[in-house]
Amino acid sequence: MSGVLEEVLTANREYARAFGKKGDLAMPPGRRFAILTCMDARLDPAKFAGLAEGDAHVIRNAGGRATDDAIRSLVISYKLLGTREWFVIHHTDCGMLAFTNEIMRELLSRSLESAAFDGKHWRDTGRGPGSREGEFIEWLAIKDQHQSVLADVERLRAHPLVPASISIYGYVYDVKTGKLLDVSGASRLGKAA
Amino acid sequence: MSGVLEEVLTANREYARAFGKKGDLAMPPGRRFAILTCMDARLDPAKFAGLAEGDAHVIRNAGGRATDDAIRSLVISYKLLGTREWFVIHHTDCGMLAFTNEIMRELLSRSLESAAFDGKHWRDTGRGPGSREGEFIEWLAIKDQHQSVLADVERLRAHPLVPASISIYGYVYDVKTGKLLDVSGASRLGKAA
Repeated sequence: MSGVLEEVLTANREYARAFGKKGDLAMPPGRRFAILTCMDARLDPAKFAGLAEGDAHVIRNAGGRATDDAIRSLVISYKLLGTREWFVIHHTDCGMLAFTNEIMRELLSRSLESAAFDGKHWRDTGRGPGSREGEFIEWLAIKDQHQSVLADVERLRAHPLVPASISIYGYVYDVKTGKLLDVSGASRLGKAA
Repeated sequence: MSGVLEEVLTANREYARAFGKKGDLAMPPGRRFAILTCMDARLDPAKFAGLAEGDAHVIRNAGGRATDDAIRSLVISYKLLGTREWFVIHHTDCGMLAFTNEIMRELLSRSLESAAFDGKHWRDTGRGPGSREGEFIEWLAIKDQHQSVLADVERLRAHPLVPASISIYGYVYDVKTGKLLDVSGASRLGKAA
């Protein structure tokens, strides 16, 4: 068994041992909100936004983007499970700022082993074979995380399955300080028209 | 300002106040693994799997499904940020077990307000208008969470952008006990062919 797998299972046994009354929690989020944010390892939404188990839905992908899949999740979140407020949270120093579709496609076409960033360029550390399948994927890289938050809030706001009664807030999380920074006007954007 | 927004920002200020050295964490996950799991409010992957900030990528959507967007995220996770082991974790009492494409499409076509589940049927609590846009979305409901984990691990395993060197583990999280249950053979599925 891998070291990581063993560590995860050990940590899980300790968590389950002190599980207490958490087994009684209901399925719908108790505080009726959802957070859409990035998969980045430095982000712990439960900690940075003060969530206990049972409080809120958390949706995460590369960048925290309002993809079709995030929309699928958010629509299930409000329609079946009653959330009424959504946070879109991107963050500083995001990996999505460090590449483009072209770079990702080129790297994947050369090799399926991990690449390394030297601060300026991506370098292959491995050998081939690669795959051209990357050319058929939109990687959703980000140029400016304030703009990406606004674009994503706007996409959700305009979606035909998102009612005007849902409030949508846009924030940028600062990985250097742990602070959520209001993206100008984000809370106002959330108000129903 | 909404009560939820104010509570989140207050919790965030407290988190940032005790942020300590977390601002120095590097972008690549220190423990080189990723978790794909459900958005369910009762799940806290950092707690149930023992993650500190900086340890691992966490990808979440409705059901924890291996969607195209999850694959986009996981490929970025290993190719650019060096993860080598992935966990697919679905869970008991998942909302995705409680509906079908047909039910979701019908509910959305009638109303964009939240519905309520009476233990047997979904009931509209609101009025229209609805939208037929739901007919163009595959909602990825789940019939059996062991099968869905195996299907999703298999999809990742067979994807042309996922190298055989990545280990993929399949688990079901039990919301009544907090325990991770190995889906039969999941850790063996992760071994390179």
